[in-house]
Amino acid sequence: MIIGKVIGNVVSTIKDPKYNGYKLLVIQEMNIDGGYEKNFVIACDLIGAGVDEVVMLVTGAASRSSAETTDKGFDAVITAKIETLIFEDKEVKL
Amino acid sequence: MIIGKVIGNVVSTIKDPKYNGYKLLVIQEMNIDGGYEKNFVIACDLIGAGVDEVVMLVTGAASRSSAETTDKGFDAVITAKIETLIFEDKEVKL
Amino acid sequence: MIIGKVIGNVVSTIKDPKYNGYKLLVIQEMNIDGGYEKNFVIACDLIGAGVDEVVMLVTGAASRSSAETTDKGFDAVITAKIETLIFEDKEVKL
Amino acid sequence: MIIGKVIGNVVSTIKDPKYNGYKLLVIQEMNIDGGYEKNFVIACDLIGAGVDEVVMLVTGAASRSSAETTDKGFDAVITAKIETLIFEDKEVKL
Amino acid sequence: MIIGKVIGNVVSTIKDPKYNGYKLLVIQEMNIDGGYEKNFVIACDLIGAGVDEVVMLVTGAASRSSAETTDKGFDAVITAKIETLIFEDKEVKL
Repeated sequence: MIIGKVIGNVVSTIKDPKYNGYKLLVIQEMNIDGGYEKNFVIACDLIGAGVDEVVMLVTGAASRSSAETTDKGFDAVITAKIETLIFEDKEVKL
Repeated sequence: MIIGKVIGNVVSTIKDPKYNGYKLLVIQEMNIDGGYEKNFVIACDLIGAGVDEVVMLVTGAASRSSAETTDKGFDAVITAKIETLIFEDKEVKL
Repeated sequence: MIIGKVIGNVVSTIKDPKYNGYKLLVIQEMNIDGGYEKNFVIACDLIGAGVDEVVMLVTGAASRSSAETTDKGFDAVITAKIETLIFEDKEVKL
Repeated sequence: MIIGKVIGNVVSTIKDPKYNGYKLLVIQEMNIDGGYEKNFVIACDLIGAGVDEVVMLVTGAASRSSAETTDKGFDAVITAKIETLIFEDKEVKL
Repeated sequence: MIIGKVIGNVVSTIKDPKYNGYKLLVIQEMNIDGGYEKNFVIACDLIGAGVDEVVMLVTGAASRSSAETTDKGFDAVITAKIETLIFEDKEVKL
């Protein structure tokens, strides 16, 4: 899974109707220094995440493992908020 | 999911007959500065997207989640037009 | 899906017997300038492609969407020859 | 599969309830010189791995191949501890 | 599929019991110049490959397409030895 920070959101009205009622967030991927990469992904939020929160996302077919997302056609979903992240016995500032 | 801009299209007559009737578009991936990467992907259009529009695409097995695309053999489909994209409280110019 | 040029082929006698009768081609990936990347992939040819032709390939589980390739264990197949590729209203020289 | 070193762990209380009882570890990927890349992944630990141990992980749908992880929504799991790694007849220092 | 050279192997005793009896090899990926990339993957050997041999591997769900590997939890398997590799009418030295 990937750790990233929620940095924004997406508005779309012309879309696959299966997406109705799901919130799509913009996630910037964290690197090993605790900074953030230049790339981003859009993920469906399943846990009520907000901007500036650090979250874990799953990608690929795992995105459709829950009853909520089976057959919804997402390839990335946010499945956890990260409260503490420890690298080499040191807590990463989130 | 990925955000990108439609920059062109593909014409093919010798192809898997399952593709008949589907429009294939060329998508350039957006980066976190709101600019575009040098790479592109070809995606099947499910929502009526046109050149210069900013869209969201799903890749991998999620491309086959809809009744329309099950067993069609696509690995990337356009599932939403993006009207507004917010990064850090700032609207990205689309 | 990916656009690439057929640049060669592979000969193998010691292989998974499921591969018997399938032609494996070497594909170099096209970039957005119409040039080619330094990486290549090997794909199973389903449409009769030849060296120097520009083709579209699907990767991942989509490679097994056709009756012909289900359970054959390919992760990349050529599913279309590209006759015309338009980027920003300009035809790419193939 | 990927070889990496366990460099930390993740604490999350707001998460998909399917994850309850699973340990999530931070893995830094090994490169061919026996050093480590700057990227990391989060993987579910199935074998009792600890910090500084070198492990093998599977990613993608293979993460859900065991009875333990089917439908759990992980996209990376640790499936082996590496005791010895031989590159070109030379043992890599782990 | 990917072409690579077998450069070593992996020993593990604490592992998913499904892996028992399978040989895990270290594969370095070939680039388009016939040289080798700095990254490697671990793949399950299904064809009796040895060090310094050039092989083809499949990755992802295709790794589980054979009766032998269904439900074994591998994400990369070696499915062919490469005897001849032709790039642009020129045989690549293997």
